[in-house]
Amino acid sequence: MSNNKTCKSADAVLENFISSLDVETSHHRVENQKIKCGFGQLGVCCKLCSNGPCRITPNSPKGICGANADTIVARNLLRAVAAGSGCYIHVVETTARNVKSIGETGGEIKGINALNTLAEQFGITETDPHKKAVLVAEEVLKDLYKPKFEKMDIVNKIGYAPRLENWNKLNIMPGGAKSEVFDAVVKTSTNLNSDPVDMLLNCLKLGISTGVYGLTLTNLLNDIVLGEPAIRAAKVGFKVVDTDYINLMITGHQQSIISHLEEELIKPEVVQKAKEVGAKGFKLVGCTCVGQDLQLRGKHYDEVFSGHAGNNFTSEALIATGGIDAIVSEFNCTLPGIEPIADEFMVKMICLDEVAKKANADYFEYSFEDREKISNYVIDKALESYKTRRAQVKMNVPKDHGFDDVITGVSETSLKAFLGGNWKALVDLIAAGKIKGVAGIVGCSNLTTKGHDIFTVELAKELIKRNIIVLSAGCSSGGLENVGLMSPSAAELAGDSLKEVCKTLGVPPVLNFGPCLAIGRLEIVAKELAEYLKIDIPQLPLVLSAPQWLEEQALADGCFGLALGLPLHLGSSPFIGGSKVVTKVLTEDMESLTGGKLIIEDDIIKAADELEQIILKRRQSLGLS
Amino acid sequence: MSNNKTCKSADAVLENFISSLDVETSHHRVENQKIKCGFGQLGVCCKLCSNGPCRITPNSPKGICGANADTIVARNLLRAVAAGSGCYIHVVETTARNVKSIGETGGEIKGINALNTLAEQFGITETDPHKKAVLVAEEVLKDLYKPKFEKMDIVNKIGYAPRLENWNKLNIMPGGAKSEVFDAVVKTSTNLNSDPVDMLLNCLKLGISTGVYGLTLTNLLNDIVLGEPAIRAAKVGFKVVDTDYINLMITGHQQSIISHLEEELIKPEVVQKAKEVGAKGFKLVGCTCVGQDLQLRGKHYDEVFSGHAGNNFTSEALIATGGIDAIVSEFNCTLPGIEPIADEFMVKMICLDEVAKKANADYFEYSFEDREKISNYVIDKALESYKTRRAQVKMNVPKDHGFDDVITGVSETSLKAFLGGNWKALVDLIAAGKIKGVAGIVGCSNLTTKGHDIFTVELAKELIKRNIIVLSAGCSSGGLENVGLMSPSAAELAGDSLKEVCKTLGVPPVLNFGPCLAIGRLEIVAKELAEYLKIDIPQLPLVLSAPQWLEEQALADGCFGLALGLPLHLGSSPFIGGSKVVTKVLTEDMESLTGGKLIIEDDIIKAADELEQIILKRRQSLGLS
Repeated sequence: MSNNKTCKSADAVLENFISSLDVETSHHRVENQKIKCGFGQLGVCCKLCSNGPCRITPNSPKGICGANADTIVARNLLRAVAAGSGCYIHVVETTARNVKSIGETGGEIKGINALNTLAEQFGITETDPHKKAVLVAEEVLKDLYKPKFEKMDIVNKIGYAPRLENWNKLNIMPGGAKSEVFDAVVKTSTNLNSDPVDMLLNCLKLGISTGVYGLTLTNLLNDIVLGEPAIRAAKVGFKVVDTDYINLMITGHQQSIISHLEEELIKPEVVQKAKEVGAKGFKLVGCTCVGQDLQLRGKHYDEVFSGHAGNNFTSEALIATGGIDAIVSEFNCTLPGIEPIADEFMVKMICLDEVAKKANADYFEYSFEDREKISNYVIDKALESYKTRRAQVKMNVPKDHGFDDVITGVSETSLKAFLGGNWKALVDLIAAGKIKGVAGIVGCSNLTTKGHDIFTVELAKELIKRNIIVLSAGCSSGGLENVGLMSPSAAELAGDSLKEVCKTLGVPPVLNFGPCLAIGRLEIVAKELAEYLKIDIPQLPLVLSAPQWLEEQALADGCFGLALGLPLHLGSSPFIGGSKVVTKVLTEDMESLTGGKLIIEDDIIKAADELEQIILKRRQSLGLS
Repeated sequence: MSNNKTCKSADAVLENFISSLDVETSHHRVENQKIKCGFGQLGVCCKLCSNGPCRITPNSPKGICGANADTIVARNLLRAVAAGSGCYIHVVETTARNVKSIGETGGEIKGINALNTLAEQFGITETDPHKKAVLVAEEVLKDLYKPKFEKMDIVNKIGYAPRLENWNKLNIMPGGAKSEVFDAVVKTSTNLNSDPVDMLLNCLKLGISTGVYGLTLTNLLNDIVLGEPAIRAAKVGFKVVDTDYINLMITGHQQSIISHLEEELIKPEVVQKAKEVGAKGFKLVGCTCVGQDLQLRGKHYDEVFSGHAGNNFTSEALIATGGIDAIVSEFNCTLPGIEPIADEFMVKMICLDEVAKKANADYFEYSFEDREKISNYVIDKALESYKTRRAQVKMNVPKDHGFDDVITGVSETSLKAFLGGNWKALVDLIAAGKIKGVAGIVGCSNLTTKGHDIFTVELAKELIKRNIIVLSAGCSSGGLENVGLMSPSAAELAGDSLKEVCKTLGVPPVLNFGPCLAIGRLEIVAKELAEYLKIDIPQLPLVLSAPQWLEEQALADGCFGLALGLPLHLGSSPFIGGSKVVTKVLTEDMESLTGGKLIIEDDIIKAADELEQIILKRRQSLGLS
């Protein structure tokens, strides 16, 4: 280990645990990577060609090719957004293919209501559920594979009318989602596009395909296969690790890939195998977004799912508890940092999606047809790993980490049902000023915006204190629930009127929508609230913050927020500070384009102030005191 | 202007002209960008997430996430190769769509032989040429749009059998080309793939789709629309600019986009319009690869095409001659550096492909249906520009720049025909040792590998001196022809036996295949030579060098070379020096994988030595003295 100093975490128990470890984690590496490249941070470094790297300075205001800071910054940003969009589109493609296969093979449909809703929205009249599932999936896949010059259909079917009008006016309705990603990568290549404004509008276009397909539809398709979320209390943190079981840690974003495994692990004959090696059975331990998604749908996976342990930057520590016997990864956020720790703790790594192949993992290409084989393979490897490692590896699970009463399973549907079947109760509370407004605190966790989850947690506290209810989705949720903000007792931290609401309803002031994919669910809530009020989304007293955005995917999500006309706060710059044009378009001009706006603010109180001011202004415009 | 010092060029007349200019060009900016970032050059800088930028040093051997130098370097390289592949796949898609439209509308088919050859290879039995063209184009488009998990058909139809076997063995046969690019971008995102070897094999896979579709097929499809290359002598350099005409400079890679314009410009009623404003008519001035492609097919465009002025880094100077009245761009390599010069010289800029939108250009979205409108628009703008600017802008065309007798129009077909209809003559000359071997000097021009075209030109001289015949395609050709190496008199620079061959045949020792796309033609030559000799490609005394590679596209091309089993020399590293694994796999292990090998050598003589040694070794293996 290069040093013993770890970064701060909002989660004190976790921070202590990590600093006591003998293995190196991401938290340790922050210190050694603390000197940042100023050019990279400002976005003014270009490595696209062999004449480079070129860097913009006052004395060298252009790269060799003539690209200025505006072109370079916009190009870097668009390429990042394209990659982020690609990740989510990959996820929705896999999910849609699984829905299709389940339909074709007459597999189990756990979310019949979700299927019916989606089919109705798509205008599908087929009545047989399996055929209907196939048709729904095919609609999605057809759109994804359209060329760029053919617009996707579903955007028009599920988009909100005033937004569609705005997007048409701006000429940012996306063509086929995969081709849009492809073309954006081409556009950002050397000596191609040099127009920063065109590239920023392109970011919004990618935001729309990311949001509608990658986020919203992935959730709804997963609901069909995996069952719809239902509100319930759950255990979180390291305490979910029960070392009496053979524990599989799942990382990724594609729950439908492991749905067969989930069913297998609790079959008596499989449990019997576990018993033969001395364990009580198998458990899936949640980590990263797929764990958050399992938690969201926990009602359907009560027996096999032990609970969500934590977010991306908790995964290395989770392995270091010794309690994990095998890791199944199928997408990001699977940190390379887990590899040496898995080796050290003799944990078998299995990867099911080539794009996420880890250096030391066995790779088994996922396909629906091979699901039986894959599940057997994983089970065998986990049994083997358990047998070998348990005798040699010390268990060190901090049982004081986590909470028992996190309210989970919140979705656009379960929340509305909880509120009595429509949005009136929430709207009335907002209108009466009991709830000042709504803030989505979403996206990733990182280690550099004040430390692990610190900005996320402190901003949430600051907002609920101001009677702004917080909805969360993504690794941010993993952080918030592990410090207790999603337990009902967190009501005590809220302002008086929000506290009263929470206590009356028995809910925490921070609602857990689950994985980052569920940002799409928040956006359904926004749409339905706007619809209920007969206003456009940018008029709602609703703000977004991805205070600790980490990945390119977060930037693609963020672009959807901007396209929806939402104010979007980030706790650190998406590497755009070097361009006046890019900064101005995103942080100022955007308001006149979509109604949204980017806010980059690295001070927690100032960020809360600015978000609150926007909410107050919007309340005022709606005639609310 | 920030400084007056310009970089060296192999082209002394050009270098003098540029250093005399009052405008800033890329050649001027080399000086101000001479301090390079060591991290970027080694490929060990990662900007994928907000925890970064992270940089690998001995004291910080991993990024915060845990990615080591091998993962970071491989990821950066794969993303670059994916982008480069995307560019070429975009070009072949546009080209195939144009072929399809021409077929559907009964447009002119200039290359009926090319159509018949391709249809036969695809197994198309339709006899009507227009229907046949539609079917050929549809085969290509169908493959491009396949999902990644469906292999493309045409690879099997036109690939060389021993290579197909190798690629199948390595499991690198590409799925749908657009999805392959898409997935590689996903794979290289944060916390996804961390396996350097997997990523390098993925580079080869992208190389195959790039080479077969983006390169080879683009040429052959263009042959259908634009006519096949025919060998002839042509004028090159600034001397091709005739200021009595309204001069349009074309930049990009998609000649089929301007094919309608090419026909329009010489129609009597259009020439009449030019005459009304005082010009003799319109001329297209070639620059970058689309100019090289026009030159290649010059026989069919004798009246409208004035000749090829120069490569990418000649374009700024060309505008600064004052002789250009409008610029039509449709892809890279359209340097951002031309924008302020075009403004200064009052040159109208028109862009026809969104991915290449220049900041100061009018954008007119190309579509086949709108070709009439687009041509009229370009003509009107050019007339307007000519009228306004000619009174105000001084003409300064260095008429001593260039040559009158460059041998152009060389292709796999025209060369074979020239040699008597088969490869026997060439093979006999090689067998007899008159020609020691063949070197493809291909790809871009850059300004930093010794200066503008210096490595390219000097390496070519060194190789022909050693009786190795040089075939060139890409901006490298633009450099080689502008210094006289493609004129028959260059035979004097060749070694004795090659000189004799050249003099007998009346050809120069460096053969001009045209645009970078025509690297695909060189590779057809390689395949046909191997076929003729009944050996595999890696056994041929044939080497590749992209001494002055510039763009990500060159890296994708290079990967095709490696997949074909060819030794590939680069004059500067593709930013991989920071990874031992990546360097070893590409420069050593590759030989046992595909038979190819990457050679990074920044010394011209050493590079020539190494390439010659490989040729000698292969001659020996073939039993040739």
